[in-house]
Amino acid sequence: MAPSNTQVRLAQRPVGLPDDSTWEITTEPAPEPGPGEFTVQVGYLSLDPAMRGWLDDVRSYVPPVQIGEVMRAHAVGRVVESRHEGFAVGQLVSGMFGACEYAVSDGTGAMAVDESVAPPAAWLGALGFPGMTAYFGLIDVGKIVAGDTVLISGAAGAVGSVAGQIAKSRGCRVIGIAGGPEKCAWLTEELGFDAAIDYRAGSFGRALHEAAPKGIDVYFDNVGGDILNSALAVLRRNARVVICGAISGYNATEPPPGPSRYLSLLINRATMAGFIIFDYADRYPEAMAALSGAVRDGSLVAREQVEAGGVADFGRTLNMLFDGRNTGKLVLKIADL
Amino acid sequence: MAPSNTQVRLAQRPVGLPDDSTWEITTEPAPEPGPGEFTVQVGYLSLDPAMRGWLDDVRSYVPPVQIGEVMRAHAVGRVVESRHEGFAVGQLVSGMFGACEYAVSDGTGAMAVDESVAPPAAWLGALGFPGMTAYFGLIDVGKIVAGDTVLISGAAGAVGSVAGQIAKSRGCRVIGIAGGPEKCAWLTEELGFDAAIDYRAGSFGRALHEAAPKGIDVYFDNVGGDILNSALAVLRRNARVVICGAISGYNATEPPPGPSRYLSLLINRATMAGFIIFDYADRYPEAMAALSGAVRDGSLVAREQVEAGGVADFGRTLNMLFDGRNTGKLVLKIADL
Repeated sequence: MAPSNTQVRLAQRPVGLPDDSTWEITTEPAPEPGPGEFTVQVGYLSLDPAMRGWLDDVRSYVPPVQIGEVMRAHAVGRVVESRHEGFAVGQLVSGMFGACEYAVSDGTGAMAVDESVAPPAAWLGALGFPGMTAYFGLIDVGKIVAGDTVLISGAAGAVGSVAGQIAKSRGCRVIGIAGGPEKCAWLTEELGFDAAIDYRAGSFGRALHEAAPKGIDVYFDNVGGDILNSALAVLRRNARVVICGAISGYNATEPPPGPSRYLSLLINRATMAGFIIFDYADRYPEAMAALSGAVRDGSLVAREQVEAGGVADFGRTLNMLFDGRNTGKLVLKIADL
Repeated sequence: MAPSNTQVRLAQRPVGLPDDSTWEITTEPAPEPGPGEFTVQVGYLSLDPAMRGWLDDVRSYVPPVQIGEVMRAHAVGRVVESRHEGFAVGQLVSGMFGACEYAVSDGTGAMAVDESVAPPAAWLGALGFPGMTAYFGLIDVGKIVAGDTVLISGAAGAVGSVAGQIAKSRGCRVIGIAGGPEKCAWLTEELGFDAAIDYRAGSFGRALHEAAPKGIDVYFDNVGGDILNSALAVLRRNARVVICGAISGYNATEPPPGPSRYLSLLINRATMAGFIIFDYADRYPEAMAALSGAVRDGSLVAREQVEAGGVADFGRTLNMLFDGRNTGKLVLKIADL
């Protein structure tokens, strides 16, 4: 008899911060794989700021999650039944399995997870999409070169913490922006950032000028809002602004103001560019080789904050991202694998 | 005896739109050239939106004009006295001679004006910095390729009108934005634009969707403000936004809002880049060869709006730019050369 499968579905589109009314918890028998498919038991669910965007019914880089659909989510799980020759029962895999206890996959986007390199949750962070986002965002979009001064917001988050370490490893001076003294201390003391600015401490503009008296060459932005605008004020000539995300505005009920200092791009002959990690699919192996090599040799610290609970805790765990309660990659563990 | 030389100097920095109190009119004897210098009698003064920025005491790509200084301005004049072996008496030249009747130059930035190609005023427009700005902005920054849909604001202005024609000549579909039906008719009927949108006619967003139902590949922005924000809403994947200017906000007394739709850059993997024409100095000959060739063979229409007056009319003529009273390059003619 199939085990029961609890799932988190989108009940209604949130206005502002998601809450209990956003989600519907459903339970049904675990699915059976068809030919060429496998069933995975989900152990670790990824919580990503981008998820908030997937809940809005707007044109974007992926279709919105539909009302009644299981919430889209990256996850790590173990194959428990397989009719797919590439995936064997017992194997650990990551993939877009969704916020549920069991999922069927045809293998699209699924990747083997190697526990000898790092524990399963790391494959949703430094060794998953956040790590690859940092990698391509800095190298391809930000075009970092040794000697650059690189400013990173959301620096204690899943993407930012990897981005800073990549920039350091390539000879850049790295300044992180994070909320609170503990995160800032982690950046400078554990991850090797040259400086960290606590944006909650006040005097942000002055702190930024002190940390980067000659300005910045690259700004890797995860937050948007006032911090983006302040960063624009300190661009150096030919600076690159990488738009990775804008978490400060994701739950706004009115469109947040745009960066009023965007003409700094003109004065400084600078560039602001957005990117989507999925466009780099044919180069994932390159990024994964670099990232797993760095984790293996100890030069890249992969940190996950693993919350324990049931899949029904997905919503409350997601909201931890929006008030800054995570350091490193936020993951919800729902089963021992 | 030296002729008298009336000059327009910056009396005080304007708040909002410049007015009579911004300028001081002074008269003194025309200057004598020193060794390696020449004196030019100014015939045509260029009026440029960027001049407004030069009046503010802020860090920018050039130092601000200082209080009491002769206003910085490009001009075309005739050499009336010369101790410079590269410039002979009687020769027509363009250069940064300033808002005055006579100026001394050591030849820096001065270029010969060839009346057999186009009349003097054209050398301040299509064959001057506006033309070169359009050229490098579209080709190097906007990276136009045949088949692109190119949107241009300020399209009936000195830069925009040339930009649209360059894009057409390279096989792009070109949509211009201008104020009023006469300018729009000029763009489509005389310059060959595929479409023109009168931003004063209302329903701008809808008109933009109709003119570019599949979106735009390149946006060449001269105006900023709401029009920039609307353009961001219709970017295609890998679009390039070229920030050339932002005339809609140049006289604002509060910082104008930034483009709230900037996350369209992320969704569409698009780039927004600023540039300064002076960085292309070593390639001016390339642009001038292309532009003068196109004027000569009739494929580039160079249009100037030549106002007649004295140098003291500089201020009122400049303000014509800010309420859209010019079509093509705005020039003040102060002497027959």
